[in-house]
Amino acid sequence: MPSVHPPPSPNAAPELLYLLHGDPVDLAEALSGMRAADVAEALRDLHPDGASKVMAALPFDLAVQVFDEPELEGHRCAIVQQMNDQAAGPLIEAMSSDQQADLFRELPEANRARFLKLLAAPTREALRLLLAYPPETAAGIMTTEFVSMPTTWTVDRALKYISEVGRAKETVYAIYLLDPADGRLLQVVSLRDLMLAADRSQPVSEVGNKRVPLRVTPLTDREDVARLISKYNLLAVPVVDDTGRVLGIVTVDDVIDAIVREQTEDVQKFGGMEALDEPYTEITFGRMIRKRAGWLCALFLGEMLTATAMGHFEGEIAKAVVLSLFIPLIISSGGNSGSQATSLIIRALALREVRLGDWWRIAMRELPAGLALGLILGAIGIVRIVVWQKLGWYDYGTHWALVAGTVGGALVGVVTFGSLAGSMLPFLLKRLGFDPASASAPFVATLVDVTGLVIYFSVAFAILRGTLL
Amino acid sequence: MPSVHPPPSPNAAPELLYLLHGDPVDLAEALSGMRAADVAEALRDLHPDGASKVMAALPFDLAVQVFDEPELEGHRCAIVQQMNDQAAGPLIEAMSSDQQADLFRELPEANRARFLKLLAAPTREALRLLLAYPPETAAGIMTTEFVSMPTTWTVDRALKYISEVGRAKETVYAIYLLDPADGRLLQVVSLRDLMLAADRSQPVSEVGNKRVPLRVTPLTDREDVARLISKYNLLAVPVVDDTGRVLGIVTVDDVIDAIVREQTEDVQKFGGMEALDEPYTEITFGRMIRKRAGWLCALFLGEMLTATAMGHFEGEIAKAVVLSLFIPLIISSGGNSGSQATSLIIRALALREVRLGDWWRIAMRELPAGLALGLILGAIGIVRIVVWQKLGWYDYGTHWALVAGTVGGALVGVVTFGSLAGSMLPFLLKRLGFDPASASAPFVATLVDVTGLVIYFSVAFAILRGTLL
Repeated sequence: MPSVHPPPSPNAAPELLYLLHGDPVDLAEALSGMRAADVAEALRDLHPDGASKVMAALPFDLAVQVFDEPELEGHRCAIVQQMNDQAAGPLIEAMSSDQQADLFRELPEANRARFLKLLAAPTREALRLLLAYPPETAAGIMTTEFVSMPTTWTVDRALKYISEVGRAKETVYAIYLLDPADGRLLQVVSLRDLMLAADRSQPVSEVGNKRVPLRVTPLTDREDVARLISKYNLLAVPVVDDTGRVLGIVTVDDVIDAIVREQTEDVQKFGGMEALDEPYTEITFGRMIRKRAGWLCALFLGEMLTATAMGHFEGEIAKAVVLSLFIPLIISSGGNSGSQATSLIIRALALREVRLGDWWRIAMRELPAGLALGLILGAIGIVRIVVWQKLGWYDYGTHWALVAGTVGGALVGVVTFGSLAGSMLPFLLKRLGFDPASASAPFVATLVDVTGLVIYFSVAFAILRGTLL
Repeated sequence: MPSVHPPPSPNAAPELLYLLHGDPVDLAEALSGMRAADVAEALRDLHPDGASKVMAALPFDLAVQVFDEPELEGHRCAIVQQMNDQAAGPLIEAMSSDQQADLFRELPEANRARFLKLLAAPTREALRLLLAYPPETAAGIMTTEFVSMPTTWTVDRALKYISEVGRAKETVYAIYLLDPADGRLLQVVSLRDLMLAADRSQPVSEVGNKRVPLRVTPLTDREDVARLISKYNLLAVPVVDDTGRVLGIVTVDDVIDAIVREQTEDVQKFGGMEALDEPYTEITFGRMIRKRAGWLCALFLGEMLTATAMGHFEGEIAKAVVLSLFIPLIISSGGNSGSQATSLIIRALALREVRLGDWWRIAMRELPAGLALGLILGAIGIVRIVVWQKLGWYDYGTHWALVAGTVGGALVGVVTFGSLAGSMLPFLLKRLGFDPASASAPFVATLVDVTGLVIYFSVAFAILRGTLL
């Protein structure tokens, strides 16, 4: 039965390590049957010295593919520094331009010149262009290897051209048709359109849709590029400069990497920390602590306001210790409802379901939602106190009914405030120019904790004045 | 200057609405220039009755593309029910098979038969196959329109075949080569490989890589399909049954949709609620409250344990009210550090950077991390109390130094416990067969709150016995 699923061999590294000390011929043979992504994954677990030996043992084409894997990011630089110029030069030259740019971004300034010298002049030029853009922009993740031709070519000539130059291009499935006079982008056809063309002597411009092609500018955010590609189901999108000329293209696989990376950042930020920017298993202990301590300290300083607020109510607590029992319950309910609302709005903003201008509409939705949720929790809270009191499990004192009313009322207020504050925070951050995804669950909880205490003791004061307080 | 970025027209709906009441010819003309994804987006904002009129006014090819847009999910069913059989039949027939399946999943049972009758027998058969699989599996999102051929065909014949049948296929860029005897999948070649083949009279099996192709089973989780496509930069992956035959393919654009959907679910779950499964702006108020109230109540019930725990310490609080001042500060710090650790581990598990068996290694990393973070916060906490006391901003009583020590010690304990518990919770959930992403920030906070109180009062008891307690 040859129909076994070839496993993406998660632990190829120990085997590689073993082969590394054996016969180089064995090693090369074992590796040449592997997929580039798997070799790249295995190389990540090896010491750069060993990894460079493996690279040397690979067939050249596979070596290039391995080095083109975004998985190898953060490791390429160390590996390439272990290689001699004869090996490194052709390898870097053959990489796709977006990955070349990534590699040079990682290289220490001092080393860049050494490797730049190994490249052909046009490659160097393309690289200089790419490195001029920040890595989170369209131009920062684009490749300059795309297929373009004048609109006047025939389908036949186009197909012949593709079969000649195709090997060196990142994709041959989207073909960019340029104005023969000034090189401006006029149209995009797919290889499929060309293949399906009934008459192969007609000009390529007659094939497919004549709509102005979708495009992005060099500085378009990579998240927006991802959204465009995903919405219109594109295989690639052209990056076009002010004069209408194509600088490069962003392909769908680059976009998936960008989506997954953004997703990791968002989850980590929502967890209340700076994004790690490298895998949890690879980041050094010191760097991880720094990334986590920053926000944790900021939140701690914010949360210190609760001690201040509590200080104001010390007299009330001394008089009615029973009130202190419900403090964690009440403030955490506010934090939880706020965290829900924040996660909803962050996501709705990220997916563009909701825009900055919608804040009032959302507030008018979260207000009743918070009230409804608050009434539910308030009712449960009251039932709990009544049941415990009646069954004799706990004695909340002679004024237990008023205490129950206080807790119920405070829950309605705190949950409503939590939902409202949690939903408005991402809008506020966006309005101030920050990433709405910085509105983490702990951030919202901290915000709501202080207010929650004030709401709780205000309700207590209103209900219990003259009795307990 | 025609090089303006064509805006993805976010608000095409009002314009459509206006055209709807005008001349149908104007409407059709305005729409035929639009992209399918934009029309789909606009249709979502229209009443199904209006939307079905728009569909009728569209050129047939565009109508099919619009109906193929995953963006229209959840709306197609209402629209198609407004159409007559003459219009609905050909439209559904021409849709791609994965979107057909989605449509029929949405249709009420009673209506399925009516629309099934409109389809050709082979389409009906393909549909029955797809509907047999759950929508979160590979087979649930696959399409059955792919290009396959026997390995014995020549490149020339293959290219001719593709140009004939290509229009009806979801993608022509991956071509599946089958065993001429029994139809088993033997090899995958790309259209690019075929185009670049030097000798077009050689068999297709001689072109490209001869490796056993990557494949998934019908029941592979769509998340794993997404991971495979993204790791190996594929345009499509074949879904293969037990006998080695290809049932269908999952394409990269379906996978992006799946990734974005999972991402939304994960963010919402991490925010402490059930995933909404529909856009925030479209879900009804009642359904949203139900999705939010469930977890909120569960968390509330868990958090009630804090009231129980506090009940045990009521005597201590009465004796030393000053201790109550720091309760919110201390338990929230535990929750925050736990939320950080949880977000890190959820993400590392999702990206397969970390496996279930790694739990001990992670615990041994989070323990010192928690200690380090706890020491930082503890130091800040002590400084705060000392400064406030010395500057006369607050009087923590004669034993203020011991109170400071208690708060500092408790912070070290609580933050360490928070980091450890937060990092282990996703492992525990996964071990028990739940989604590790259910370990939300509020869940961790609730877990840590109760323990945090116990830690705080235990430290207090140890330090303050004989003085305040």
